Amino acid sequence: MRRSKAFIPTTKEAPSDATLPSHIFLSRAGFITQVAAGLYNYLPLAKRVIKKIENIINEEMTKVGAQEVELSFVTPAELWQESGRIEKFGKELLRFHDRKNNLFVLGPTHEEMMVDVVRNRVTSYKNLPLNLYQIKTKFRDEARPRFGLMRGREFIMQDAYSFHATAEDLDREFDAMEAVYKKILTRMGLDFRVVEADSGAIGGSGSKELMVLAESGEDTIAVCSKCEYGANIEAASRSKRSNIPEAPEASFNKFKTPEIKTIDELAEFFKIDPYYTVKCVAKKIIYEDASEIVLFFVRGCDNLQEVKAINATEALDIVDVTEEELKERGLVPGFIGPLDQDKAKHVIDSDLKDATNLICGANEADYHFIGVDLSVLSNAAYFADIAEVNEGDICPHCDGELSFTKGIEVGHIFKLGTTYSKALKAEFLDENGKAQPFIMGTYGMGVSRLVAAVVEQHHDENGCIWTKETAPYMVNIMISNIKDEAQVQAGEQLYKQLQDANVEVMLDDRKERFGFKMKDAELIGFPYTIVIGKELQNGHVQIFDRATKEKRDIKSEEIFDKITELI
Amino acid sequence: MRRSKAFIPTTKEAPSDATLPSHIFLSRAGFITQVAAGLYNYLPLAKRVIKKIENIINEEMTKVGAQEVELSFVTPAELWQESGRIEKFGKELLRFHDRKNNLFVLGPTHEEMMVDVVRNRVTSYKNLPLNLYQIKTKFRDEARPRFGLMRGREFIMQDAYSFHATAEDLDREFDAMEAVYKKILTRMGLDFRVVEADSGAIGGSGSKELMVLAESGEDTIAVCSKCEYGANIEAASRSKRSNIPEAPEASFNKFKTPEIKTIDELAEFFKIDPYYTVKCVAKKIIYEDASEIVLFFVRGCDNLQEVKAINATEALDIVDVTEEELKERGLVPGFIGPLDQDKAKHVIDSDLKDATNLICGANEADYHFIGVDLSVLSNAAYFADIAEVNEGDICPHCDGELSFTKGIEVGHIFKLGTTYSKALKAEFLDENGKAQPFIMGTYGMGVSRLVAAVVEQHHDENGCIWTKETAPYMVNIMISNIKDEAQVQAGEQLYKQLQDANVEVMLDDRKERFGFKMKDAELIGFPYTIVIGKELQNGHVQIFDRATKEKRDIKSEEIFDKITELI
Repeated sequence: MRRSKAFIPTTKEAPSDATLPSHIFLSRAGFITQVAAGLYNYLPLAKRVIKKIENIINEEMTKVGAQEVELSFVTPAELWQESGRIEKFGKELLRFHDRKNNLFVLGPTHEEMMVDVVRNRVTSYKNLPLNLYQIKTKFRDEARPRFGLMRGREFIMQDAYSFHATAEDLDREFDAMEAVYKKILTRMGLDFRVVEADSGAIGGSGSKELMVLAESGEDTIAVCSKCEYGANIEAASRSKRSNIPEAPEASFNKFKTPEIKTIDELAEFFKIDPYYTVKCVAKKIIYEDASEIVLFFVRGCDNLQEVKAINATEALDIVDVTEEELKERGLVPGFIGPLDQDKAKHVIDSDLKDATNLICGANEADYHFIGVDLSVLSNAAYFADIAEVNEGDICPHCDGELSFTKGIEVGHIFKLGTTYSKALKAEFLDENGKAQPFIMGTYGMGVSRLVAAVVEQHHDENGCIWTKETAPYMVNIMISNIKDEAQVQAGEQLYKQLQDANVEVMLDDRKERFGFKMKDAELIGFPYTIVIGKELQNGHVQIFDRATKEKRDIKSEEIFDKITELI
Repeated sequence: MRRSKAFIPTTKEAPSDATLPSHIFLSRAGFITQVAAGLYNYLPLAKRVIKKIENIINEEMTKVGAQEVELSFVTPAELWQESGRIEKFGKELLRFHDRKNNLFVLGPTHEEMMVDVVRNRVTSYKNLPLNLYQIKTKFRDEARPRFGLMRGREFIMQDAYSFHATAEDLDREFDAMEAVYKKILTRMGLDFRVVEADSGAIGGSGSKELMVLAESGEDTIAVCSKCEYGANIEAASRSKRSNIPEAPEASFNKFKTPEIKTIDELAEFFKIDPYYTVKCVAKKIIYEDASEIVLFFVRGCDNLQEVKAINATEALDIVDVTEEELKERGLVPGFIGPLDQDKAKHVIDSDLKDATNLICGANEADYHFIGVDLSVLSNAAYFADIAEVNEGDICPHCDGELSFTKGIEVGHIFKLGTTYSKALKAEFLDENGKAQPFIMGTYGMGVSRLVAAVVEQHHDENGCIWTKETAPYMVNIMISNIKDEAQVQAGEQLYKQLQDANVEVMLDDRKERFGFKMKDAELIGFPYTIVIGKELQNGHVQIFDRATKEKRDIKSEEIFDKITELI
């Protein structure tokens, strides 16, 4: 492509709301334009990157026998009523009536539709397993679309759905899909981590996320210093602490603690480690058609992990409560404890099970209990893993320490089980001729988000740095002075040579200053720019490596061999 | 792909509403499933065909320098308000509010959006011409979605938009796009015709349609027996008749014609050719915010062409009127004529301009005028081409005769001019530094409709017959008896050989009867099926050519060479 003909509207200014490098650089380098909140157009450069990612996905999916389909984007709401998700999805699910007043939704994901495609069409275990996937536009009416392509409302996703006769076969496919997704990200040149993920909300027996490591990632990942363990902080677990602080010795008693409401104040007051205090986090829990106040108790050194709290209570959502709401319930903010707690439903972190030497609120203003032994509650209370792991906690699989890193979730694989096939009555006949619901897996990869993720991980202060398998063009030939006939001729000749060799090449033939064109090239992020400049008269051209910023003089007669060797 | 693993749910029954071969066979052969009226899922076979068509389009578009983009499907309604099309499009334009109550539409076409992308980003004539295109899902909320993929609500379309500094450059691009579209259809193996089309509604100075010839086509095309001329009947024109019947001699007079209301009765009564009678077709014409009765006069041997009538009156739509409505206006149904016509607006067909020896209604019950000379109206009346051409009429470009054929409109190219760039204030600076609106062209090709069009043109009573460039798989290897180890081995070996040679091949390894598998293969329509059957023991296999139904015995050691030579 000739740069003079290419539609690449680069600009100096980034959108005013852009904070992430990918949002800034993809906008400035003319890859995308914004249409409205969370809606973007992909201009020619972005479209090329998207197609490269799609090609990689298609190649890898085909290798494992998955078959590509394309399902209707506009989906009848009845299917979502059948599955029960029309309510659960809330306002993210965009609904509308057609001219005949039938209710439809814009597909944000296609579990229901895919089950509908397969039910009554695959009827025997003999035709299983089956893995169907598509790469298609999706829509989620996000409350806060932001960060450019990272969290848009309309986005491109690859979504795959597998159908199995046995749980073992689902396990096999799940592992195969993990391998496929790893292969895809590896080919894209991305540094990533597969982590254990929360799968509470969608149901099913297991799920993993593929996280592209980047400072700007919205997700926090706990990773082990020794073993392969990694988990989204929403799902991360840990071993019991080994370096337990010295226990405060005291027999059970009620103690006056005037105005001592926070954990810090409490630890200070009793001169103990917060480990031995009990923190109460009161929340309002939202169910499908009700809500209630629930008290979550964790050690004072820990924090409540809200996703774990949602899972522990099988809630749809969790929100804060005011002190007034607590008082209305007869609770005493600052002094709420688990003993004799009959005012509200409560969940106690597993790490507190059978814990002793504790200090906790006495459910009475200005009083705490000391010398508390929670083993008395063992049978009566509900214990669950609701605490967030901390950096330095011990890995659940080895004796390594956990540390945190940031990641961009670009893929998610789920063992769905029979949730959807049961809801939509999708069954097959097993070997004994008995009807069984399909056992399902579901797998998704954010294609447009991956475009942003590449830039998040690969950029510098001057712009994008595309990896070889994702670059919109691999080589940019820059004719330094377009009025110099020798330079033009050399540029045109190399351009033709590279095109003939099927290299994706851009020829910057614009009548602009060298500095302007060079900045443009760095902003766009071509892996290699070949500068044909003054040194041509001495038989040299220059290769600029975008990633390393290295510039190398090459004999002009060797440039074709050199660049084809590099790419 | 192994047929035993492939998701191709073939069935004996066609959908109850299916009348067209493409709807019947694409459904029965497991290419598509219906979701709701006008909404379809593309299963693996259809997806493969779609990708082939898309690849051909991409290759040909790239050759002429067009650049691929992908625009947001969900489009702000404001853009449609800016262009004024939000009203004109009516209910076909699906509208909805997002969670923040902003109005959006699902893009049925992207003129507005593309102009929005280019405005303020292309600012100089130096950056023109520009041709941007996409291949993307579109949505039109059709009142009567029908015929499967032929007239769906959600469909895949390639839409291109070109921007120019001069009308001459638009003409050049228009011709180039005509050539591109012809190349695409030729590569697809389709018999088609480029015809002149109506461009009244969308505006602009010219338009052509690409029609795939098929009996089931919804469009009637007039084609010349001698020259290249072809036109949609909505836009077809003709030369003046040469074989004019003998004129009835009579001087002007009012004649009592009791109960003579129809043209046939009139011609019979006066013993004249209907050519000399004047037919009145009264219609109600719908404008954006009004409607009125308009009388259309054509020769008795002609019929009114409604699209021409719409264009002649610059109307949005045209509907029938009742006799009562006419009487209310003081008109006399059956006896309405153009002379002294002051009751309603009227349009007279150009062929009646200066016509003589006519008989027409006298605007009085039971009376006609005879010996009418319409040249008296020349200055006062509005003449326009509003008659439909007839088979046997003379070509407007040569002395050939016009005949009718049926076509499926798969492409449409338009010289749009400045309609949208003016409405959306999209301007560039010309050579003199003066701001000018972009001169635009727009070009569209129905990708999913093309899938159906291939089948409409290429099928027989047993199913689809895919052309080489559109076939989901080129070769189907059928192991006749899956229990015969030699057959299995030969089949597997050939399968591997062909895969290694990058031939798209299906291996029918199912434990089904030969007859069942053969019917399935014919229904799906693989160009070639290689039957590995009993004759293998005598060193022979069979090639079945789907198009010709020819079966040929081939020495089994020659089959690989033979089939790769064929394809």
